[in-house]
Amino acid sequence: MTRPLTLNPDRLFPAEPATRAVAQRLYAQVEDLPIISPHGHTDPEWFASDAPFANATELLLAPDHYLYRMLYSQGVALEDLGVPSRKGPSGADPRAAWRILAANMHLFRGTPSSMWLDHVFAEVFGFDVRLSAETADLYFDRIGEALATPAFRPRALFERFNIELLATTEAPTDPLKHHKAMRASGWKGRVVTAYRPDPVLDPEHEDFTAEIERFGEISGEDVQSWAGYLAAHRVRRQAFMEMGATSTDHGHPTAQTADLSEAEAEDLFRKVLGGTFTPAEAELFRAQMLTEMAKMSLDDGLVMQIHPGSFRNHNRGLHGAFGRDKGADIPTRTDYVRALKPLLDRFGNDRRLSIIVFTLDESVYARELAPLAGHYPVLKLGPAWWFHDSPEGMRRFREQTTETAGFYNTVGFNDDTRAFLSIPARHDVARRVDASFLAKLVAEHRLDEDDAAETIVDLAYNLPKRAYKLDEPAAERTPELV
Amino acid sequence: MTRPLTLNPDRLFPAEPATRAVAQRLYAQVEDLPIISPHGHTDPEWFASDAPFANATELLLAPDHYLYRMLYSQGVALEDLGVPSRKGPSGADPRAAWRILAANMHLFRGTPSSMWLDHVFAEVFGFDVRLSAETADLYFDRIGEALATPAFRPRALFERFNIELLATTEAPTDPLKHHKAMRASGWKGRVVTAYRPDPVLDPEHEDFTAEIERFGEISGEDVQSWAGYLAAHRVRRQAFMEMGATSTDHGHPTAQTADLSEAEAEDLFRKVLGGTFTPAEAELFRAQMLTEMAKMSLDDGLVMQIHPGSFRNHNRGLHGAFGRDKGADIPTRTDYVRALKPLLDRFGNDRRLSIIVFTLDESVYARELAPLAGHYPVLKLGPAWWFHDSPEGMRRFREQTTETAGFYNTVGFNDDTRAFLSIPARHDVARRVDASFLAKLVAEHRLDEDDAAETIVDLAYNLPKRAYKLDEPAAERTPELV
Amino acid sequence: MTRPLTLNPDRLFPAEPATRAVAQRLYAQVEDLPIISPHGHTDPEWFASDAPFANATELLLAPDHYLYRMLYSQGVALEDLGVPSRKGPSGADPRAAWRILAANMHLFRGTPSSMWLDHVFAEVFGFDVRLSAETADLYFDRIGEALATPAFRPRALFERFNIELLATTEAPTDPLKHHKAMRASGWKGRVVTAYRPDPVLDPEHEDFTAEIERFGEISGEDVQSWAGYLAAHRVRRQAFMEMGATSTDHGHPTAQTADLSEAEAEDLFRKVLGGTFTPAEAELFRAQMLTEMAKMSLDDGLVMQIHPGSFRNHNRGLHGAFGRDKGADIPTRTDYVRALKPLLDRFGNDRRLSIIVFTLDESVYARELAPLAGHYPVLKLGPAWWFHDSPEGMRRFREQTTETAGFYNTVGFNDDTRAFLSIPARHDVARRVDASFLAKLVAEHRLDEDDAAETIVDLAYNLPKRAYKLDEPAAERTPELV
Repeated sequence: MTRPLTLNPDRLFPAEPATRAVAQRLYAQVEDLPIISPHGHTDPEWFASDAPFANATELLLAPDHYLYRMLYSQGVALEDLGVPSRKGPSGADPRAAWRILAANMHLFRGTPSSMWLDHVFAEVFGFDVRLSAETADLYFDRIGEALATPAFRPRALFERFNIELLATTEAPTDPLKHHKAMRASGWKGRVVTAYRPDPVLDPEHEDFTAEIERFGEISGEDVQSWAGYLAAHRVRRQAFMEMGATSTDHGHPTAQTADLSEAEAEDLFRKVLGGTFTPAEAELFRAQMLTEMAKMSLDDGLVMQIHPGSFRNHNRGLHGAFGRDKGADIPTRTDYVRALKPLLDRFGNDRRLSIIVFTLDESVYARELAPLAGHYPVLKLGPAWWFHDSPEGMRRFREQTTETAGFYNTVGFNDDTRAFLSIPARHDVARRVDASFLAKLVAEHRLDEDDAAETIVDLAYNLPKRAYKLDEPAAERTPELV
Repeated sequence: MTRPLTLNPDRLFPAEPATRAVAQRLYAQVEDLPIISPHGHTDPEWFASDAPFANATELLLAPDHYLYRMLYSQGVALEDLGVPSRKGPSGADPRAAWRILAANMHLFRGTPSSMWLDHVFAEVFGFDVRLSAETADLYFDRIGEALATPAFRPRALFERFNIELLATTEAPTDPLKHHKAMRASGWKGRVVTAYRPDPVLDPEHEDFTAEIERFGEISGEDVQSWAGYLAAHRVRRQAFMEMGATSTDHGHPTAQTADLSEAEAEDLFRKVLGGTFTPAEAELFRAQMLTEMAKMSLDDGLVMQIHPGSFRNHNRGLHGAFGRDKGADIPTRTDYVRALKPLLDRFGNDRRLSIIVFTLDESVYARELAPLAGHYPVLKLGPAWWFHDSPEGMRRFREQTTETAGFYNTVGFNDDTRAFLSIPARHDVARRVDASFLAKLVAEHRLDEDDAAETIVDLAYNLPKRAYKLDEPAAERTPELV
Repeated sequence: MTRPLTLNPDRLFPAEPATRAVAQRLYAQVEDLPIISPHGHTDPEWFASDAPFANATELLLAPDHYLYRMLYSQGVALEDLGVPSRKGPSGADPRAAWRILAANMHLFRGTPSSMWLDHVFAEVFGFDVRLSAETADLYFDRIGEALATPAFRPRALFERFNIELLATTEAPTDPLKHHKAMRASGWKGRVVTAYRPDPVLDPEHEDFTAEIERFGEISGEDVQSWAGYLAAHRVRRQAFMEMGATSTDHGHPTAQTADLSEAEAEDLFRKVLGGTFTPAEAELFRAQMLTEMAKMSLDDGLVMQIHPGSFRNHNRGLHGAFGRDKGADIPTRTDYVRALKPLLDRFGNDRRLSIIVFTLDESVYARELAPLAGHYPVLKLGPAWWFHDSPEGMRRFREQTTETAGFYNTVGFNDDTRAFLSIPARHDVARRVDASFLAKLVAEHRLDEDDAAETIVDLAYNLPKRAYKLDEPAAERTPELV
């Protein structure tokens, strides 16, 4: 028995009628605004080559760890889902993998994945029956057919999705050839890169040594010396800015920063490069490098993003067999108050610098992050992130940060995704949740509706553009005027 | 002036009419389902002897630390409430103790205790006036009279409560004579035991040395050797399984696990047995024993329950005078990500193993437990526990775990109680809270009502049976098929 | 374009009509009750001198770190807002400073500051247009004119605000001359002091050495000896009690307590006084002093308030330029379970003692504070504090503490403010939030409305009077009778 698939126009809005009516009005202000996606992980090759996507499994299932981690938790083998391992591509039949997803859709009840998928199914592919064991083949076939048509090529979808700007994330050692190719192609779509130096900055990264070598090659600097290593960063940051970058991104285990003397930093760099460092020294090097990155941002204007608190590759066996980024990253308790102090002591009041801080530890929203961002001129709060990029997670973010930091120390929504087709769904969820949050404030007479209507446009559009400096050449940026 | 006692049929449902209507429909699906109580602390002697309960105080007040801890916090002496001390039974007059409770019912406003009590008063005893100073004697007398009748004997209540299965919890040194007696009696009520080895496994347990000795006697193994000690566990686990056990339960101060070599474990055991261990060694021994228990579960199929994070007997004076379990246990901050890693590194991907994790630290729901359970095949989330076994606590559990772990990595409700008469009340609250949570998802178009209707039955009935392997002999269990 | 300013009579009440109706009825019970303000930071000189306030900026902006921290976070210099620095008064033009606030009111959307300000503007000054860039001068002028009239002098406002009792906070070295002057003046307003010994008790306080010297002078005791130092506390506590004090207040970095032997304590005191202590010794001294304060409270009956968990003066540069209390205090993770144990082991069951505990770390509400207060006779929970003194913050406080600690282990509302004009606004918000919380319980049939109506009066009026012993001379206090 198939069941109908419909996207209710009031989804995610509060049930109470008066509040819902406000939410509807507020959402109408932003429903059709272009998408600003300043932080994500889509593959720039898609837009450079504009080659068609292969099939439902390769497009929607195998790259989406939200989906396969849940299936894995219930005993499904990753091999059966088309997920590639260290040995290479999965040998799974894509259709068989898709059927497993279809038969287990109940696992996603109440999760954002089910809302995102339904949005993609209904809006992007036009399905009007739900995905289930019965409709698995229908879905697989119809998606496959669609993907073979020009309208479903990456650039066509980008335009259909009304994306004004999309940032991808690359390592300093990436030659950015896809970004160059995109520009060379004359395509108007605005896809920019972001500078993610973790692999050349985290001594505990599994590719650190090899990446450092590549870093020297691509920058033309002597990265075996501290001065040369820093120069290499400057060179590559400049190259990234030429490909549109306005931000850097730092995915550290903690938010620790440091402010060592020149001599101490140089010593530490030598140790780290020698490979004879302790975990504490690796941590200290990462900490120092955040401060070094801040110094460079004072010069070149790149906005810093700090994404700490994930215990990467927690599942030892799975990491051994499948490698990184396979859904086995687990958040940990994260301190910000002491961790950020060395950097803030140095630059916390310098209005030329802008740092966007994220967390996977919601207990710090009201306790640490909102008070910090509600005071320091350099700090802004990134949106609810990763596991918390969900209706309840976004609601908690607003409820726990707004009263101390306000709306204007936040930076709008990040989709943070490699699931390209879900980008409109994710932004739509964020806009609906913000509309609902604001509607509650209006319905409880805590905010006037005219103010709410202005605020929601800022949240959806103006704040991300301003926070990520998307309207101005980074070199000419000015402190925000009041 | 007496005031009427009524249980509103819509209690705990959201006030918004459309949402409430959904909640009513969902609740109707589960209202009359049998009770599965896979984790609790009722006394098996009640069902073995089927002797009548004594009076209101001995049945409802003196064993319920939720009640007397609150009264104690406001200055009432435990001696006056019929609570036994290390010196023996309280000398308090049961009626006088009951009057103290009755005069202080305002202290319980907004607490689950008041909802549970009112449910017991109205549903089990048929009261239609509220308990207060004025009605204290009426209550005491009527309850006393009722308890003297056959309909209020333990087995009759068990049947009236529609309990399909009830698990008690016993130490390995318990001869299980009440369970044997129950079986021998021919009574059809399904009361099973669960294996709670803390007293023979926690070197810091006040009875550790004496319990180890008893452990040797009852198992017939040489528990002075590491091999013999482990063998004794195997022997007793088998004996518990003969009395229906399908699970073990571990109430450790932390969730720490370890994976020592055989030689290290044996050394540590010798130290621990010698009584010359440090706190860190006691912690390491408990940690290692969780991994040992997991190994045994691979063989015998018992589901593991880990209940960490309580600082037991926090009140030194009270513990000295009254002993354990007197309401002075206080939750502490608890880490799971690092603590569980040694065990998960060893067995985390082994689908034969099933571990149900609980917490008293709600800050880990979204940050640690949901991501862990939403990834590892061996992990499931136990329900909101102890202090959080309450409407707001259960709501927070669902709001903070569902989006990442879904409903199907949870295991239904545990009443965890020694207050036998409150069992139907507690399950009813859980069903109402789940109905309300699901109704909100439906009313906000985040979940279809047909899916919600299926889910609530799973939460109330199917998931606990499956998670605790209640339908199959443990030895023949199979990994869940997808 | 000016926009109307109105205070909706239903502000902060739930939007759902039936629930709102309950909230309206409950709020009506407390709307006009006198204000009990047992913990705050207004300046007693205002009431002693009864001199008129200067202008809008000096009254409302420059002393309110909630306001200028937010403006500062967006790049406004404190110098421009009239905030005095270490160099002396700000040279800013008060009108220009006011215009900056007016032009940036959007930053406060969704914050309690905007609700408090609007309440002050509408209720105290009678404005019916909103503050904005356009109305900045109108506001500045009209407020200035009003402040010059007798009706806006401090005592007149105190009476108009229907304040039954207001506590200020002074250091032991304060001669309390303003309190004495008030009493001598014959004014009937009840303004009392509270004993805040941090500066003579925290070896890391920047004024510690100088304050110790003053402490000796004002007490007439030899504060260079441990016995004399303790005696000085007793002397000053007595002097504070003569000025109405019923409580002490302790703003420590952590909640740590200690219970050293007499000899250890004396040794530690010598070290601390010598200035050669480690941070751990400073912490231990503060910890021991909480226990010493508890001992004194057993004798003189002062209620203890513990306000831990703020990382003071986090912004190094700002602290250097502007000094303490400039909005750069950031909450930190705070443990209570282990920290309070030494003190509780000593006095936790002594019903003569009363300790009110606060937190800036909401993750402890349900996990630590409610279980502790729901058990220990000496402990009560202070209200949602500082950053959490807001609608969402107060809601979380009730949701996370009530089920375990009940309402009757809490102590009503503290406004904790130096913003005198906002006191009625703050109490009004608290009453509305409590009405809304209780209304939800009633609407969901978790509490009967008659009980809720009694409870809200207790929360607004009776509990603070009882918890702070405001109806009885402290010396004659008795344990609460049940």
